Amino acid sequence: MDRIMMISADTHGGCPSEQYRDYLDPQYRDRFDGWLVQMKEMYQRMSQGGGGLFSEDSMEEFQRESQGGRIGAWDNDRRIQELESDGVIGEIIFPDGSFNNAPPWTGLISFEKDPELRIAGARAHNRWLAEFCAKLPQRRAGLALIEIDDIENAVQEIKTAKDSGLRGGILIPGLTSDLPGYNHPRYEPIWATCEELGMPVHTHGGATPGFDGLPSSMAIFVTETSWYSHRPFWFLLWSGVFERHPKLTFVLTEQSACWIPDTLFHLDQRYDSPMFMNLRKGLSLKPSEYWARQCYVGASMMSRHESEMRHEIGVDRIMWGSDYPHLEGTWPHTRQKLQGAFKGIPEAEVRLMLGENAARVYNFDAQELAADVERVGPEADVF
Amino acid sequence: MDRIMMISADTHGGCPSEQYRDYLDPQYRDRFDGWLVQMKEMYQRMSQGGGGLFSEDSMEEFQRESQGGRIGAWDNDRRIQELESDGVIGEIIFPDGSFNNAPPWTGLISFEKDPELRIAGARAHNRWLAEFCAKLPQRRAGLALIEIDDIENAVQEIKTAKDSGLRGGILIPGLTSDLPGYNHPRYEPIWATCEELGMPVHTHGGATPGFDGLPSSMAIFVTETSWYSHRPFWFLLWSGVFERHPKLTFVLTEQSACWIPDTLFHLDQRYDSPMFMNLRKGLSLKPSEYWARQCYVGASMMSRHESEMRHEIGVDRIMWGSDYPHLEGTWPHTRQKLQGAFKGIPEAEVRLMLGENAARVYNFDAQELAADVERVGPEADVF
Repeated sequence: MDRIMMISADTHGGCPSEQYRDYLDPQYRDRFDGWLVQMKEMYQRMSQGGGGLFSEDSMEEFQRESQGGRIGAWDNDRRIQELESDGVIGEIIFPDGSFNNAPPWTGLISFEKDPELRIAGARAHNRWLAEFCAKLPQRRAGLALIEIDDIENAVQEIKTAKDSGLRGGILIPGLTSDLPGYNHPRYEPIWATCEELGMPVHTHGGATPGFDGLPSSMAIFVTETSWYSHRPFWFLLWSGVFERHPKLTFVLTEQSACWIPDTLFHLDQRYDSPMFMNLRKGLSLKPSEYWARQCYVGASMMSRHESEMRHEIGVDRIMWGSDYPHLEGTWPHTRQKLQGAFKGIPEAEVRLMLGENAARVYNFDAQELAADVERVGPEADVF
Repeated sequence: MDRIMMISADTHGGCPSEQYRDYLDPQYRDRFDGWLVQMKEMYQRMSQGGGGLFSEDSMEEFQRESQGGRIGAWDNDRRIQELESDGVIGEIIFPDGSFNNAPPWTGLISFEKDPELRIAGARAHNRWLAEFCAKLPQRRAGLALIEIDDIENAVQEIKTAKDSGLRGGILIPGLTSDLPGYNHPRYEPIWATCEELGMPVHTHGGATPGFDGLPSSMAIFVTETSWYSHRPFWFLLWSGVFERHPKLTFVLTEQSACWIPDTLFHLDQRYDSPMFMNLRKGLSLKPSEYWARQCYVGASMMSRHESEMRHEIGVDRIMWGSDYPHLEGTWPHTRQKLQGAFKGIPEAEVRLMLGENAARVYNFDAQELAADVERVGPEADVF
């Protein structure tokens, strides 16, 4: 096999919001209709007035270049064609949030306070996604959206997700909001279940607390969102979750990768400091050793800066991601961006980061994908 | 002048907590007595049981080496002697928090919800500190503790502090808690007053939200506290405070310095990104340019790693700090630690970082200090 097996560790999928109605348990459909109106209004406001996250110029350019934008988030044929044109043969599918294909009451970003509604929305998304992945199961690893208010329910949803073929694992909320932090023992059944079922646990960039609507809020959001998504890593680490669950896999996606060497350096420094000996009680490994044993980064839009850090991060820990079909992602310029990030790096390492690591974590069958890789994957000598 | 003028940009001072009673407005003294009992109990709990921030071994070693611990936080003669033995001739004095010399209801860390009490406590501390600085005014720049619940009161306290000789500037809470973030226009009178009066605004490592008392909380606190103290920097930056107040000085103290190059790189990247053109509206300079114009780091316990980044941070932006008289600080091993951090670095740069930058920011008179520097400062050829 000469061509490179490319698996994007970060793509997004979700049906147009109105279609989630059919996937909801019937008792939520009335409330869904009200939610849909509000969500459409919010989406309208966000696309107007020049105060949004993305500049008008960049949105127009994306619409033009992508020939209509994020339609591949739900359109099966279009998704296949667009990913293949990008050279991507496998994908890990996250939900959306605050777009016109956000699942009801939940998703990457959610402002809904009522856990019952969030749970119902997550279940609807998981049903849709299981169907969507079943259309191309060897190439699509979907992630179940899991709400954490009711732990027993969460455990049940994880089992249901596994049974329904969502082998990507689970996405937990980046923020625990009014609930205890992820260092709390209440979450123990979630970690135990995911370890037992081989379901990787993910955080994904997206949420920050206290979004206040001031003009500077968007810039502050962009500055901080990655950090908030890192937090669960050290909450699990210091509270011994990785110690107690050595086979649990934890993945941090679309929150950059360049923070990792420095963060591990400082965590290890604290672990080793005589002054802080109380902090490491019960932890048999250094933070960087837990990282190297069971954590991964979903390195979306990986930069040259980050690929040069690959040995400090761990070349076996990095799973490149395209963030398809988002504006800020690499699509439809993936090949060009890959060259910027990977030119001159040894082929074996590029193969790990672009697909082989993800294949191992998410159980893609390289043999099964081989023919498609030869058809659409980039030539190895591109890099 | 051959010897090096050393000014510590981070020291701590405060009287034994019971003595704050005399500095409080009389109507708060009854409630003070109740607070004192609670605080002493908390302090007892924190020094016992092996779950505290610092290991028992390191606390014993510090007690022994410092000959009794943090007595210099209030004892004038002892402070002079200990700082001089460290080679330090000038200092910027911050309050304490969660120690037996914390000011009532406030300080670096505060859990008190009632703003009236916090304001009364801050006022008591500021009175004590003004007296303490007046004993050695050419060598002590004290910082006024400012509460931010009532902006009119805050502005008045800043003026009072200035009049009382607290020329170090002000310390604002690292967390705005239930109040709006520092990007909110409500804080505008504070920035305007500090700019007008030449009072630098400071954040200092210490507080994190949601301290939950679980065993892992201390490790999470240590991991996160610096980041929470950085946040006001980009809140002020993105909301245009540095744009509107070009003569305002902003100082980030005891929260390490190694994060600065990377943070400025990412802030500039966002500022320059075509995708994010909406974010930079109204900002005529890049983030790194505001930094270079009006921001500083109080680089406590500066490491070799950090001194090697001095040109990326700005060698004119770095003010070394000892964190005297805290356990985690450099005292009583300052000279040895300085050699580790600065050996081989050009003398002119060492002089800037160890004292000249701080002299400029806090209006120390080098001429007035010259004789004392010749008496106690380190020889230039030590480095």
